[in-house]
Amino acid sequence: MALAYDLGSKKPNPTTLISSPPPHQLIFTQDELKKIAAYKAVEFVESGMVIGLGTGSTAKHAIDRIGELLHQGKLSNIIGIPTSKQTQHQAFCLGIPVSDIETHPVVDLAIDGADEVDPDMNLVKGRGGSLLREKMIESCCKKFVVIVDESKLVEYVGGSGLAMPVEIVPFCWKFTAKKLESLFGCVAKLRVVMNKLDDPYVTDNGNYIIDLYFKKDVGDLRVAGDAMLRVAGVVEHGMFIDMATTLIVAGEFGVTLRNKY
Amino acid sequence: MALAYDLGSKKPNPTTLISSPPPHQLIFTQDELKKIAAYKAVEFVESGMVIGLGTGSTAKHAIDRIGELLHQGKLSNIIGIPTSKQTQHQAFCLGIPVSDIETHPVVDLAIDGADEVDPDMNLVKGRGGSLLREKMIESCCKKFVVIVDESKLVEYVGGSGLAMPVEIVPFCWKFTAKKLESLFGCVAKLRVVMNKLDDPYVTDNGNYIIDLYFKKDVGDLRVAGDAMLRVAGVVEHGMFIDMATTLIVAGEFGVTLRNKY
Repeated sequence: MALAYDLGSKKPNPTTLISSPPPHQLIFTQDELKKIAAYKAVEFVESGMVIGLGTGSTAKHAIDRIGELLHQGKLSNIIGIPTSKQTQHQAFCLGIPVSDIETHPVVDLAIDGADEVDPDMNLVKGRGGSLLREKMIESCCKKFVVIVDESKLVEYVGGSGLAMPVEIVPFCWKFTAKKLESLFGCVAKLRVVMNKLDDPYVTDNGNYIIDLYFKKDVGDLRVAGDAMLRVAGVVEHGMFIDMATTLIVAGEFGVTLRNKY
Repeated sequence: MALAYDLGSKKPNPTTLISSPPPHQLIFTQDELKKIAAYKAVEFVESGMVIGLGTGSTAKHAIDRIGELLHQGKLSNIIGIPTSKQTQHQAFCLGIPVSDIETHPVVDLAIDGADEVDPDMNLVKGRGGSLLREKMIESCCKKFVVIVDESKLVEYVGGSGLAMPVEIVPFCWKFTAKKLESLFGCVAKLRVVMNKLDDPYVTDNGNYIIDLYFKKDVGDLRVAGDAMLRVAGVVEHGMFIDMATTLIVAGEFGVTLRNKY
């Protein structure tokens, strides 16, 4: 593991929270690790719950698993709150009933992946593009279970050298990007549609994404986040500060779980 | 005057900054007062300047005046940066050349109205609906001249009992409105198109406006503003904190000017 994680509360089944390495060491692919973490998270789901359904390749496994358990009759009376149009479509195809936070403003549990997780369980999210809806839904859930493979663990936010996404309004986006660059001395790049350099990626909310590449630790995340939000034109940033309550990490030596509260 | 304002720097022409009441007291309409303030502001405009062009009934007078001076040859080589599509249209009709803050990231002077002005020259803006573009442009100008009639002076932000507008994303807007209500114990109402109760007003950026009605002084405006911006779904709030550099107030006893810096 890249970082040592303490074991926290041992619900729902303490004996299964760490899978020992098999006698003959298997090498898992990254996708298999994601699936292992996702399936572990779904053990927290109980019948009758309102569940925030995350977006991205790891969350997709959890949603598939919820659909499977519903069809097997092992779960019932679930309401899913999708964090993106993409996830809404997946839930629809799996027959998971969906709603939204206007109708169900209290979410019992949300399950989602993350692009980075720091030692305080602060997250970077949004490389998949749906950070705003994710943050709206995951900020009103009683429990927020984050599922990652161990490659997502970082020493500090931005520490992977990969993007920290910021959703901005399209109007004069270059101006907003420059303001963000000067604020943090970072590189800011407009996200574009894959293989279409002149075609900006547009979020579910009709906005653009600026990917920030930090050269160093930005320090106090709340201060940095507030500074970003104060830039007129910024809609939301991809730092999920002090939101995750449970972290499930799948790595080559097994699965670890950590509770923050 | 609702509040006493000190006289500040006396540019451009100190002797004309306060118009004495005429010998036979005239009663000006509110629109005439707006026009008096607007014309006074345009005295700051010099040939060759990049000018932020505000939005709303008071700013409209200033833009008309700039157009007039251009046509009279008393101003030349002006570039206008419109803060809304509406203002862009007005500038186009008047023959004022326009650009944007991507091409002209340094704005020499912006002139705009305000819905409220507190004793520290903090503003409420956005009842006209274009607070985000206004804030983007007016946050990058060297000088920001605010023009109001005296009815806009308040003891504290929200003190008029009228709306403090917040631009939000349409997705689950009721949820965002409730969050804002619970944050400040205020009433939050979705702005609708005039006389169409089921038809939300949509900003130039495709967003909605929530009008907050505060019951009391919200205290430290920067703290309150940060709290609003942290609500996922909020794009921008209508408090323009510490941005105005010059305030021109037209009232029944004349025009007063105050410089902050």
